[in-house]
This record gives sequence, C-alpha cells and structure tokens, in this order.
Amino acid sequence: MTGCPLCETAGGRVVVQAPRWRIVHAQEAGFPAFYRLVWQAHVREFSHLATAERTECMETLVAIEQAMLRHVQPDKVNLAALGNAVPHLHWHVIGRFAWDSHFPGAVWAQAQRTPDASVLQLIDDRLGLFEQELRAVLPR
Amino acid sequence: MTGCPLCETAGGRVVVQAPRWRIVHAQEAGFPAFYRLVWQAHVREFSHLATAERTECMETLVAIEQAMLRHVQPDKVNLAALGNAVPHLHWHVIGRFAWDSHFPGAVWAQAQRTPDASVLQLIDDRLGLFEQELRAVLPR
Repeated sequence: MTGCPLCETAGGRVVVQAPRWRIVHAQEAGFPAFYRLVWQAHVREFSHLATAERTECMETLVAIEQAMLRHVQPDKVNLAALGNAVPHLHWHVIGRFAWDSHFPGAVWAQAQRTPDASVLQLIDDRLGLFEQELRAVLPR
Repeated sequence: MTGCPLCETAGGRVVVQAPRWRIVHAQEAGFPAFYRLVWQAHVREFSHLATAERTECMETLVAIEQAMLRHVQPDKVNLAALGNAVPHLHWHVIGRFAWDSHFPGAVWAQAQRTPDASVLQLIDDRLGLFEQELRAVLPR
C-alpha cells in the first residue's frame, strides 16, 4: 500500500523472511531484545486474517517467545499488536528485564532509569543464538 | 496464587465467565472500551499454555475484537499481553478512537488531550450490545 511504512520498508533488520510474514529486529527501539512479527499483506486488524493465517501468526509468535525465553532469558515477554500509527498488522515481541529503562512500565510509558551499558551488551551477545534458533525452527 | 491480584480478584467487572478464562471490563483504565481477557490459571507467559489452550485463548480474543469492531466501532483495536506488574496471563483488548486521550500513542504513553464527555458517553452506550453479543457467541 502506497505510503505504508511496513509495505514500503522492512521495518527493521530482517531475521527471518517467510511467504506470509517476516521477523525483524527493531534496533531503533532502545530495548535490548525488541522484535516484530510483521504480516506481509497490508491487513489492519488481527481478526481480519483467515483462521489458518491467524494460527500461523500465533504459532510463529509463540515460537519467537519460546526461543527468546530459552536464549535471551528475559524476566517477562511482552506481546502487543497496536498499530495506531501504522495500521498494518505487526506484533511486538519484547524481552523485558527488571533492570531495563522502563520496567515494570510498558515500553511506551516514561523511562524510569538508564540501564548499564555492560548489561545491555550481555543481552546483545545472546541475540545471535536466539536468531539462529528462529531460522532453524521456523518454516520458511 | 497468594498475592496475585488476578488470582484473588476478578480484575474488573466480569462480562463473561468461562471455565478457563474470563472477560472483564476495566472501568478504572480511563478508556471508553477497555476489556481484559484473563486466563483463570496462574500462567506467566502466553507460550506456557498448551496448544489447545492457546487456540482457545486466541479465538476468544478474536471473538472479542470482532464483536467490538461491529458494535463499538473503534478506529483501531489494540491487543497486548504485557504482565510486567502482574505476571498472570491477561490480554488487554482496547478499542481506540482518533479522539481518545492518548491516540495514536499507546494507552500507557502520555495523554495528549482530554476527550469530550459526550463522545465518551456515546461509546459507553454501545457497550451493552457489544457485551450482549459476547455472552451470546462465546462458549461458557
């Protein structure tokens, strides 16, 4: 769709590209483990997907969450499909840590602290194995 | 679980109560159409549900979204499972309007305006039919 940033750009560094969706790393977001599952087609709401598409979308979300819990070891995973600014279906999958800038607030709330750079680097070092597992387990 | 607010209280006005989940209206949230799908069991992450439970949870979310789109007519629906403060699985299903206090920001971001009370009342008047449909279509 003309003018839609998720039709015209990837929306982040592409980790896995499948026919109906892609997983991107949202490096600009300011959180150590912030990924997005972007639906390829320009669909507005999750419920506008067909049943089989919803299942595929949901099971992909679950695979991302499970691999993230195993390899990145966040204190909590946040899942969210908002799309107020960009109404093209995309799910945020965000690994949250008790020490991160906004915890326990939402990533969209006000920052509460500045996390230590060395701790951020520790999480960054875990992303390689996480992304490797995503590429291995997800059908493309 | 002792000390968990979603084990010890409903978490809002109960609209539908099913064996494995409940739908509550979050009247305290300050948004005209803010609902939560709360999983009955104390489960931390969405991916900790069994496959059949995930499907039931997801299809219930979809039923809420579809009924909300039909009867409440929001500009966008927001779906989110965060749980940083209360790590007991619950999905926020929030009807968003271009005129609401935070749009297009997330409901957890800073408010941008004060909506007109008469417009809020108009949405409130639509909730009855929406909730009636939920009770009619969802298996309990």
